[in-house]
Amino acid sequence: MNNGYQVPRIAERMKNIEPFYVMDVLARARELESQGRSIIHMEIGEPDFVTPQPVIDAGIRALESGFTHYTPALGLPELRRGIASFYKQYHDVEAQPDQIVVTPGASGALMLVLGTLVNPKDQVLMADPGYPCNRHFVRLYEGQAVSIPVDASSGYQLTAAHIESHWTQHTTAVLLATPSNPTGMLVGDKELQDIIACVHWHGGSLIVDEIYHGLVYEGKAKTVLTYSDDVFVINSFSKFFGMTGWRIGWLVAPKPYIQSIDKLAQNIFLAAPTLAQYAATEAFAPETMEILENRRREYMERRNYLLPALRTMGFEIPVTPQGAFYLYAGCGRFTDDSYAFSLDMLDKAGVAITPGRDFGGYLPDRHVRFAYTTSMDNLKTGVARLEKYLGKL
Amino acid sequence: MNNGYQVPRIAERMKNIEPFYVMDVLARARELESQGRSIIHMEIGEPDFVTPQPVIDAGIRALESGFTHYTPALGLPELRRGIASFYKQYHDVEAQPDQIVVTPGASGALMLVLGTLVNPKDQVLMADPGYPCNRHFVRLYEGQAVSIPVDASSGYQLTAAHIESHWTQHTTAVLLATPSNPTGMLVGDKELQDIIACVHWHGGSLIVDEIYHGLVYEGKAKTVLTYSDDVFVINSFSKFFGMTGWRIGWLVAPKPYIQSIDKLAQNIFLAAPTLAQYAATEAFAPETMEILENRRREYMERRNYLLPALRTMGFEIPVTPQGAFYLYAGCGRFTDDSYAFSLDMLDKAGVAITPGRDFGGYLPDRHVRFAYTTSMDNLKTGVARLEKYLGKL
Repeated sequence: MNNGYQVPRIAERMKNIEPFYVMDVLARARELESQGRSIIHMEIGEPDFVTPQPVIDAGIRALESGFTHYTPALGLPELRRGIASFYKQYHDVEAQPDQIVVTPGASGALMLVLGTLVNPKDQVLMADPGYPCNRHFVRLYEGQAVSIPVDASSGYQLTAAHIESHWTQHTTAVLLATPSNPTGMLVGDKELQDIIACVHWHGGSLIVDEIYHGLVYEGKAKTVLTYSDDVFVINSFSKFFGMTGWRIGWLVAPKPYIQSIDKLAQNIFLAAPTLAQYAATEAFAPETMEILENRRREYMERRNYLLPALRTMGFEIPVTPQGAFYLYAGCGRFTDDSYAFSLDMLDKAGVAITPGRDFGGYLPDRHVRFAYTTSMDNLKTGVARLEKYLGKL
Repeated sequence: MNNGYQVPRIAERMKNIEPFYVMDVLARARELESQGRSIIHMEIGEPDFVTPQPVIDAGIRALESGFTHYTPALGLPELRRGIASFYKQYHDVEAQPDQIVVTPGASGALMLVLGTLVNPKDQVLMADPGYPCNRHFVRLYEGQAVSIPVDASSGYQLTAAHIESHWTQHTTAVLLATPSNPTGMLVGDKELQDIIACVHWHGGSLIVDEIYHGLVYEGKAKTVLTYSDDVFVINSFSKFFGMTGWRIGWLVAPKPYIQSIDKLAQNIFLAAPTLAQYAATEAFAPETMEILENRRREYMERRNYLLPALRTMGFEIPVTPQGAFYLYAGCGRFTDDSYAFSLDMLDKAGVAITPGRDFGGYLPDRHVRFAYTTSMDNLKTGVARLEKYLGKL
């Protein structure tokens, strides 16, 4: 075998697609742990709970039944019907099964929507800070992600006014996430309706990421489908339903796009994992929903503990995050380099968090994200360590 | 809810991304079956066998252990090591675990490789007929798939001479599939070495799809890694290992590309399904390999029956397909519209096959693909029906 490599020729887009910087934190944390150090993990954007038992049991039954072949590209008909029923039951919204596409995670849904909508140079508006993959998916298709800086004054969300002022002849779509990663903030019902009107007035498409939708602690989040079915909704079994590793999500799309989405799904991933689809049919069962409701309450307790604790220490969290399992905190009192701060905190205090640069270009060096995806005991230990660490800065 | 839709604005690329036409055949077949008709399925590009029991058992154990969280983007370390050992044991090739990327099916691997290599307008050379998703993935990234017509004279494969004569300043990569879908033909060892030399002389990248690699009936296929490790190899647990619905495959890449591939994987799919990764660690176990070897022999028997039967009926199969589970057959004696022919055959004879147009633009109307992914009894019934049907044409 020849072990000499040619000089790699890597496509231009890869210069604009960034890694998850939190992986540096995670790698260092694993290294410290392998040396025997105790690390409190508040960097991980994944539920600490395993998948609810009824869902696991459904997966085992599917395996025992030998359900190991492909499903149709748009998903198992019974799961598509189950998702439609979920919208009826929990949101009082009539989604049709033939508008629903089962996908390999929300990532698969984003890939389908943006591949179907975005031409090269087309602009997609989104909030900064936000989930970085959103802009990277747009870049993947040679489109242009337009990141609009947002702060506490708009609840870290885009408003219709933002959209109006950034719309150009090249704008094709707007992407919202509610609740948002990293801020946990919702788009208000009135604002959502204004945004729909604004986007549709311009003839554009609205994409709404509702993957943290079940994890809301103040009132109840309404799906955007309440107000229009001419929108793209991205959702997932990963976060609220606790099925991250199964790689399963879904998309609700306007009917005129379904045929295109079907052929794109056939071509780029054939179908979502079969086993995950059978398992997910149990995700809406009453016994599963009861487990999930208990977990939601536990997340809420964690938030209610961690939020004031961080504020007391001097982190700036000017609004109360209503959902997800994140707190996006200003750390300007301590540092103007949140990446170095995160690594130093990890080394000295044994607390792992995510630096702001994972969420965009608007003041990332003065922000960090805390995830409360670990037990209350761990959060208390983490807070005690942080108090000691910050006291010495 | 507003049920009026805006006029859809679908990205240009979708005009060039075609559906699987075989889905029309499959849909019609299901319709006939629902009316009580018996249909022999020779259209389906998926093993009829369920996943081997040791792999299913490993999946159940993983579920019982609660392994439902994300893995690292490049895959479970033990599976990457297992794949490296497989290359050592079955191919006597030293692949390093850190060159191996576990992906959601071969589709995920293709997405990573082409996303990392292809700039807009870059050309990727490939054989026509071929697997249609290959050209669609290139289109997805705004590159240009250059389909080179091939026929029996080169075993339906590209040669170094083809590549040399089609290379332009815009060519960035060549994609081979060996054994090929739809033809089942291999690239010979000497030709493979010439192709590597030719592509590398031009400073381009070679991508080799080896997903049907275990399913070879004449001699043994050598992986391209035997001759160079400066190549991209796409493989999958779907076909030989019988794990289609699990959505798991792998990629072997030159080390200088791994960092880019890692960040792209993080962004576009996070990781392959966790459960499938744990299950796949049992795919190389001796008891699994014994099951797979028995299946391989059964496919060979089916091929050895079907190939002469089709030739006797007047289908033109000028070469003996060495692998996969397909026969690509000229049907010019019967029709000059293989799509209509396929639907007519389905309606009148109850035999489902795939029309040539699913595999490219070179004489698709005079070719069809037969898949021997059904039992010998079914094949015999299918042949008897075809003899009767063709006798009446």
